[in-house]
Amino acid sequence: MAIRVGILGYGNLGRGIEKNIHFQEDMELVSIFTRRNPEDIKTLTDVRVDSVDNILEYKDDIDVLILCGGSATDLPEQTPIYSKYFNVIDSFDTHARIEEHFNNVDASATAGEKVALISCGWDPGLFSLNRLYSECFLPVGNTYTFWGKGVSQGHSDAIRRIPGVKDAKQYTIPVEESVAKVRNGENPTLTTRDKHTRECFVVLEEGANPEEVEQAIKTMPNYFSDYDTTVHFISEEELQRDHSAMPHGGFVIRSGKTGLNDETNQIIEYSLNLESNPEFTANVLLAYARAVYKMSCQKVVGAKTVFDIAPSLLTNKSRQKLLKETL
Amino acid sequence: MAIRVGILGYGNLGRGIEKNIHFQEDMELVSIFTRRNPEDIKTLTDVRVDSVDNILEYKDDIDVLILCGGSATDLPEQTPIYSKYFNVIDSFDTHARIEEHFNNVDASATAGEKVALISCGWDPGLFSLNRLYSECFLPVGNTYTFWGKGVSQGHSDAIRRIPGVKDAKQYTIPVEESVAKVRNGENPTLTTRDKHTRECFVVLEEGANPEEVEQAIKTMPNYFSDYDTTVHFISEEELQRDHSAMPHGGFVIRSGKTGLNDETNQIIEYSLNLESNPEFTANVLLAYARAVYKMSCQKVVGAKTVFDIAPSLLTNKSRQKLLKETL
Repeated sequence: MAIRVGILGYGNLGRGIEKNIHFQEDMELVSIFTRRNPEDIKTLTDVRVDSVDNILEYKDDIDVLILCGGSATDLPEQTPIYSKYFNVIDSFDTHARIEEHFNNVDASATAGEKVALISCGWDPGLFSLNRLYSECFLPVGNTYTFWGKGVSQGHSDAIRRIPGVKDAKQYTIPVEESVAKVRNGENPTLTTRDKHTRECFVVLEEGANPEEVEQAIKTMPNYFSDYDTTVHFISEEELQRDHSAMPHGGFVIRSGKTGLNDETNQIIEYSLNLESNPEFTANVLLAYARAVYKMSCQKVVGAKTVFDIAPSLLTNKSRQKLLKETL
Repeated sequence: MAIRVGILGYGNLGRGIEKNIHFQEDMELVSIFTRRNPEDIKTLTDVRVDSVDNILEYKDDIDVLILCGGSATDLPEQTPIYSKYFNVIDSFDTHARIEEHFNNVDASATAGEKVALISCGWDPGLFSLNRLYSECFLPVGNTYTFWGKGVSQGHSDAIRRIPGVKDAKQYTIPVEESVAKVRNGENPTLTTRDKHTRECFVVLEEGANPEEVEQAIKTMPNYFSDYDTTVHFISEEELQRDHSAMPHGGFVIRSGKTGLNDETNQIIEYSLNLESNPEFTANVLLAYARAVYKMSCQKVVGAKTVFDIAPSLLTNKSRQKLLKETL
C-alpha cells in the first residue's frame, strides 16, 4: 500500500512536491489543501484540491501531511494545529525560534500521538546534518556555511517593499576567495562581508528615482548594510526572461584538526548546486515523509528533527540491497 | 561517567584511536589489546596494554571495543567472536563480503545481547551515508565515487609482494577532467580508466631489474591493469622522507534530475580532504562508539551499519544545544 501524502499550501514548495512525488514509487498524492477557493487553483497535474476547512475529513486518508506554508506566520500556527491530527513535516526556518516551535509542536504531536518533523529541507535540514556529522568527526575545528549562488526569497521580498520598486530578484553569492581559504585549511576569521556578496536585479515603478532606490537597498539594516551589494536596474521583460529560475546551493565546510597535538589538517565539505531550490527541497521533504511514516508505524510520537532520523528510514530499499549496493 | 573504550589491534588505526580519543570529553581508553607480547608494544601515550588472551577479564570494564584489525583475515573472525561479549565497532571493508559478515556478526551480537556496528569509517561509512542520502533526495540520477588523491594500503602492499621490490607506496588519483564533467551535470559514462590514475613510488632490492618490476606492476590484474599507471623508482631515504604520510580523501557526487519531466539538474557533493586517513577514520569510529554505547543503554542488540544510526546518537550535546546551535 502506498504512503498517502497531503500538501497544505500551494506555493513554490507545494508545487515542488506535486511535480516530484512521481519519483517516489511508494507514495501517492491524496489532495492539495488551500486557504484560497479551491476552484481558483490551477494545478500542474491531475490532483484533487480541497479547502483547508475540510482537511479534518481526511484524517484517516492521509499518512503524512506536508506543510508548505511560510515560516513567518503560517507554520508557527499550522504545525501545532495539524500535528494533533496528522503526521506532519514542515520546513520552518526561522533559526532563532526553532526551539520554541519544537516545543509547541512536540506538545500537540504527543497529545495527538503523531510524528511531527520540523525544520526539514536543506538549511535547516541537510546543512544542519552535515554541521552535526562533521563536528562529531572533527571535534576541534571551524565550521563554515556559505550560501549561493542563489536567489534569496527573503531578500528579494525586502527589496520589493521599497517604494518605487515594482519587482526584484536578489542573488546571494559566496566570496570565492574566502571559500578557497577555508578549503585550504587556513581557518580564516570571516566577517559577514567576507563571506557573501549580494547582487540585485530591480524593476522600477514609472517615475521612481534609481539613486534613491539603490541607496535604500544598500543601507537596509540586517538585509544589505553589512554586505557589498550591487544593484542593476532592468526591465520587467528582462527580469522575467533572465531571472525566473530559482537556483540555489551552498557549502558546509568543516576544517578540523586531529592528532595528539592537533597537528593534522582534515577537511569535510558538503555542497549543493541546485537549478531549482523548491524542487530540491520538495524531494528532501518527500524522503523524510517516508521516514515519518515508518516512525509512525513504529508508534513513535512527538516532534523530531533530521538529527533524530536514522538514514535507513529514508529509503524503501531493503537492508539486503543496501548492504550489497550502497554500503 | 565516561564511556570506557578498548582497542583490539595496534596498527595504524589502533594508534589513530589512541592519538585522538582525547578529543572526546566523555570517553576514556581502558586498554589496548594485542596478539603480540604486550611488553613489545611501544605506545604513544601512557595507556595499559594487555594480551588479547586476557580480554574477557575486561568484560565489565569496557563499554565499546573498537576492532582495529584488517578485513582480509582479522575481522571476519574477530567481530563475530568479540561481539558476543562486548559492544563492538569494526571497519570491515571487503564490499563483496559485507552481507555475509553482517549476518555472522548479527547472530553472535544478538546471542550476546550486544550492539555491533560493522563497516564503519569513511568508505564504507561516510561515503555510504552520502550515497544513501543523496539517492533518497535525488531518486533519478547517477552516483559517482572518486577516491584520492591518497595512499592505498592495498595497492602499496600488492606492489611490495612483487619480487625485487623492497618497499613501495601507491597513490590513487582521481582524473580531474572526469570529476569536472560530473560536477557540471554531464552524467558521463566513465570506465575504470576514466576515473582514476595510479602513481607508484618503488624502492628496489639491490640487483632487481626496474623494467621487469614496472611491467609486473602495470599488468597486475584487478590492481593496475585497468588503470593508467606511472612508476617512479626512488631511494629508501626518499620514500621515508617524502611518502610517509597517509593522506587520502575523495568525492561522492550525485547528479540527479527533478521536475515533472526530469528537466532540472541538481548536484549533491560530499568530499573529504584528509592529511591522515587513519586519524580521520579513528575519529569517525570514536563518534560511532558513542552511538553504539547509547544504543546499548537503550537495550538495542544485534548488528548495525551507519545507516541505522540516527545522527543525534553521535553527539554528547543536548537536544536544546543542537536546536540552538546546529540545526
